[in-house]
Amino acid sequence: MAKSAQLTQLINNDVFRAFATYAAIVLLKMMLMSLITAYFRITRKAFVNPEDTATFGKGEAAKKYLRTDPDVERARRGHLNDLENIVPFVGIGLLYALSGPELSSALLHFRIFTGARILHTFAYLIPLPQPGRGLSWAVGYAVTFSMAYNVLKAAWLL
Amino acid sequence: MAKSAQLTQLINNDVFRAFATYAAIVLLKMMLMSLITAYFRITRKAFVNPEDTATFGKGEAAKKYLRTDPDVERARRGHLNDLENIVPFVGIGLLYALSGPELSSALLHFRIFTGARILHTFAYLIPLPQPGRGLSWAVGYAVTFSMAYNVLKAAWLL
Amino acid sequence: MAKSAQLTQLINNDVFRAFATYAAIVLLKMMLMSLITAYFRITRKAFVNPEDTATFGKGEAAKKYLRTDPDVERARRGHLNDLENIVPFVGIGLLYALSGPELSSALLHFRIFTGARILHTFAYLIPLPQPGRGLSWAVGYAVTFSMAYNVLKAAWLL
Repeated sequence: MAKSAQLTQLINNDVFRAFATYAAIVLLKMMLMSLITAYFRITRKAFVNPEDTATFGKGEAAKKYLRTDPDVERARRGHLNDLENIVPFVGIGLLYALSGPELSSALLHFRIFTGARILHTFAYLIPLPQPGRGLSWAVGYAVTFSMAYNVLKAAWLL
Repeated sequence: MAKSAQLTQLINNDVFRAFATYAAIVLLKMMLMSLITAYFRITRKAFVNPEDTATFGKGEAAKKYLRTDPDVERARRGHLNDLENIVPFVGIGLLYALSGPELSSALLHFRIFTGARILHTFAYLIPLPQPGRGLSWAVGYAVTFSMAYNVLKAAWLL
Repeated sequence: MAKSAQLTQLINNDVFRAFATYAAIVLLKMMLMSLITAYFRITRKAFVNPEDTATFGKGEAAKKYLRTDPDVERARRGHLNDLENIVPFVGIGLLYALSGPELSSALLHFRIFTGARILHTFAYLIPLPQPGRGLSWAVGYAVTFSMAYNVLKAAWLL
């Protein structure tokens, strides 16, 4: 009982609640990239695994769908970019949320990052002319860097 | 002393213990993909870095092993799919475990996800005919989505 | 008030502080790979998205910069290897830090992993002859495995 209360207190802390909300949102956004890639694979008929084209027949009939497609590759690059940027945000953001920041500072970090990554996805998929994608990437990168600085300042023990 | 007790309480909470167990298992399973890729690279003699083929001699003798191999690429795709799905499970699962779910619900989520991802790896590597891989992927995806829903319901602070 | 104190206690725990410090360092190191890839893309003029080459003119003038470059691909492989190894370290390391290890054991794990991954990056980018990169990879892998063993021993609830 006391132990459960212990855990519940963490989720009742406002900074932690804000982190949980934004971390879940950006992770769901990252997962959405799988569905977008699958959508393009199916509509463009561009697959990579032979067993995925069995529905189109056998032999040469199916083999021609084992190919790359620009829209599929673009969605995959967007997904990989999310892994490279959203995963560090979640790891560093958790440590940052536990380092006792002001709620207003924490919300500012989480909101800017989340907005920047949603913009980045649109910039990648539409695609928007540069520097649209580059800037949205840099903003998310800078936010994560700022949180890491705060974590190291609060926790430093080497 | 009080501080250590604090930390120990978290690992003594049953939901958190279950999460730690399953998270460690799926992360180890993901890491196993590195060994499978290395196994195929060595047995198929298919490398990507010139310095990795130096053992086969110099010049053209070694260059012919700088090539792609279907088994290596398949293991690499399985590894990337794990990154895309197991990493969100660990991030969202941690928040879910801290949001105070019933132990039975938490175990149900963790067990189904872990089983689905182990099946997914077999479906990818054997490979099983579709929709084997597709279904095992979808089950893991749905479990993570369900946990994210519970996190957002418990934590929502935008 | 009581809740904030709760969170502050976590960041005041020495093992957790050490984990936060090393996790932030290796995640920042992983993020650095984005800048290294961008540096090689710009200096080698090797891009993948058509919108990224618009600054070089239109049509054929720009199209010739849509190409792969060995240095760019090497940096990208180093980045992917970081995702495959540093992300499990952060996930398993967090659970390990919460499982109540001795500070000296924890520091040993964190320091060896961090050193091994920094060496791995140099071994990949220079590149050093094998088994330099292979060994630095294996050391990081073994450290993560050792932490996972400790997590499973402390938390086991299946």
